[in-house]
Amino acid sequence: MSIRLAIIGYGNLGRGVESAIRQNPDLELVAVLTRRDPDSVTLLTPGIKVYPMEAAESLKDQIDVAILCGGSATDLPVQTPQLAGLFHVVDSFDTHAKINAHFAAVDAVAKAAGKVGIISVGWDPGMFSLNRLYANAILPEGKDYTFWGKGVSQGHSDAIRRVPGVQNGKQYTIPVDAALESVRAGKSPDFTTREKHIRECFVVAAPGADKAAIEQEIKTMPNYFADYDTIVHFISEEDLQRDHSGIPHGGFVIRSGQTGLSGESKHVIEYSLKLDSNPEFTASVLVAYARAAFRLGQTGESGCKTVFDIAPGLLSLQSAAELREHLL
Amino acid sequence: MSIRLAIIGYGNLGRGVESAIRQNPDLELVAVLTRRDPDSVTLLTPGIKVYPMEAAESLKDQIDVAILCGGSATDLPVQTPQLAGLFHVVDSFDTHAKINAHFAAVDAVAKAAGKVGIISVGWDPGMFSLNRLYANAILPEGKDYTFWGKGVSQGHSDAIRRVPGVQNGKQYTIPVDAALESVRAGKSPDFTTREKHIRECFVVAAPGADKAAIEQEIKTMPNYFADYDTIVHFISEEDLQRDHSGIPHGGFVIRSGQTGLSGESKHVIEYSLKLDSNPEFTASVLVAYARAAFRLGQTGESGCKTVFDIAPGLLSLQSAAELREHLL
Repeated sequence: MSIRLAIIGYGNLGRGVESAIRQNPDLELVAVLTRRDPDSVTLLTPGIKVYPMEAAESLKDQIDVAILCGGSATDLPVQTPQLAGLFHVVDSFDTHAKINAHFAAVDAVAKAAGKVGIISVGWDPGMFSLNRLYANAILPEGKDYTFWGKGVSQGHSDAIRRVPGVQNGKQYTIPVDAALESVRAGKSPDFTTREKHIRECFVVAAPGADKAAIEQEIKTMPNYFADYDTIVHFISEEDLQRDHSGIPHGGFVIRSGQTGLSGESKHVIEYSLKLDSNPEFTASVLVAYARAAFRLGQTGESGCKTVFDIAPGLLSLQSAAELREHLL
Repeated sequence: MSIRLAIIGYGNLGRGVESAIRQNPDLELVAVLTRRDPDSVTLLTPGIKVYPMEAAESLKDQIDVAILCGGSATDLPVQTPQLAGLFHVVDSFDTHAKINAHFAAVDAVAKAAGKVGIISVGWDPGMFSLNRLYANAILPEGKDYTFWGKGVSQGHSDAIRRVPGVQNGKQYTIPVDAALESVRAGKSPDFTTREKHIRECFVVAAPGADKAAIEQEIKTMPNYFADYDTIVHFISEEDLQRDHSGIPHGGFVIRSGQTGLSGESKHVIEYSLKLDSNPEFTASVLVAYARAAFRLGQTGESGCKTVFDIAPGLLSLQSAAELREHLL
């Protein structure tokens, strides 16, 4: 029998989850819930029903795990605890400063309902977090580095588009090669913000806009760009659509550390991702953890978890013996 | 109260464990067990007692976790099941073809004794296995690659030293850069053995030995070298001692895969290690899993486990809330 999944919120991430489910023969999409008018939503998969959010309670016995695909700012803080009373839930909550509060809210509801909630699943937080944890546990004496990119930052792209005279724009975060190389060489350097990442902007100026003023305003924008070396290219809307419509991302988690009686041996642990589609990859991680949530529920577990609490074997369709034989 | 650890077998790996324990304030080395004459063994840590293997039973109440540092060929198949009747145990068993048999042997004894055994801990099997598992669970449609090196292969170094006329020798396994690059580019190539790794040998010839014959015999040795591009350098014993006495190793686990409704988005997940000391790094992984074995035991778990069965958070000295706050 398949594990019955629902998608909560049908944007880029929701569509990614829909595609990812199709790659996993033990998983089945049974419903999409949306705050929009259900009739206005067209799925990639024919035959799957779209419900309004208010229908959640009535679907209690038809859904095993709900995968929440809303935003961390306003959607997930409300939806994840709420739905954890009805289904096992998995979300990609990524507001680092509020993770423990979100954890507590989900934990209380999930425990009371006998459900499992796994929060902050994706690649950062998620796979990057796991790699920070493993590397820190193995090399207690050492130093952590996280680099992001090359990839599109939605927040910085939005900031560009708010500049007067800007018609459209996209921002790429790019790790500085020299910084990466010095970390890989085990030199344990300290970096300024500027030394780690470059920000590259592709901007479509409105007709007649002052490009020099736009460039100046972007480059000096506090928090977003002022602390970085920022490159601004002006291009046409047509070129932006053709060359910059993807949502690639990725990055590097590196820990360098030392072992031996007096720290004489140096080691470098590196994990990296190169992703054509940030939302589709995040969705694929969510779907694997939905399997784990269901399995934990089957063993009688309940309450809120993070990737740190989930034994890796629970993510795989293969049995423990198969995993030992093929992947160990 | 500290977790009380014992080292079983005091070679390179055992010394690595001894150093690693000192980096972890919650762990305490309380005993070393050896098959040699205990009086002939001098530890790096003053004040720790060395016992003969036969003393294991008498130490039942003084040791929480035994870390086995013997070889996979003959030591661990006997010692790990035996000691799992007395203590929690962790080993680095790495004979891939026999892992399920070893698992069953340890499982039976550990369950009967109410102990936890974690086998095949290290970097391959170990951290590399974990990365294969995570990447496969996230990207079910894709292809796995494992590259080893640059590093010293003990088995191949031994094979060189058995060639007539060879006085000493060391072999490095080196991944082929072009192969790595083509995998990273998401091209999902198929490789022959020769295309993935180079074997580089540093050989000290005995006085008067026929170097051309030695080189020919090494390069054509079945299984070990015949299927590879092999480079042979003749050097002096002095140079070998000076430049090649370390035991570095490392490697790369890469999975490339695709997502999207028709596989239109490509992704590359890469994990790599660059290790000055293979045994010290393996030891550091063993020590982190010793902590996990103890904690699992505290919750009433018993039986054999692998890295696939261990929730990552159990490896860390930090509490779950601290981990969520600092590393998630």
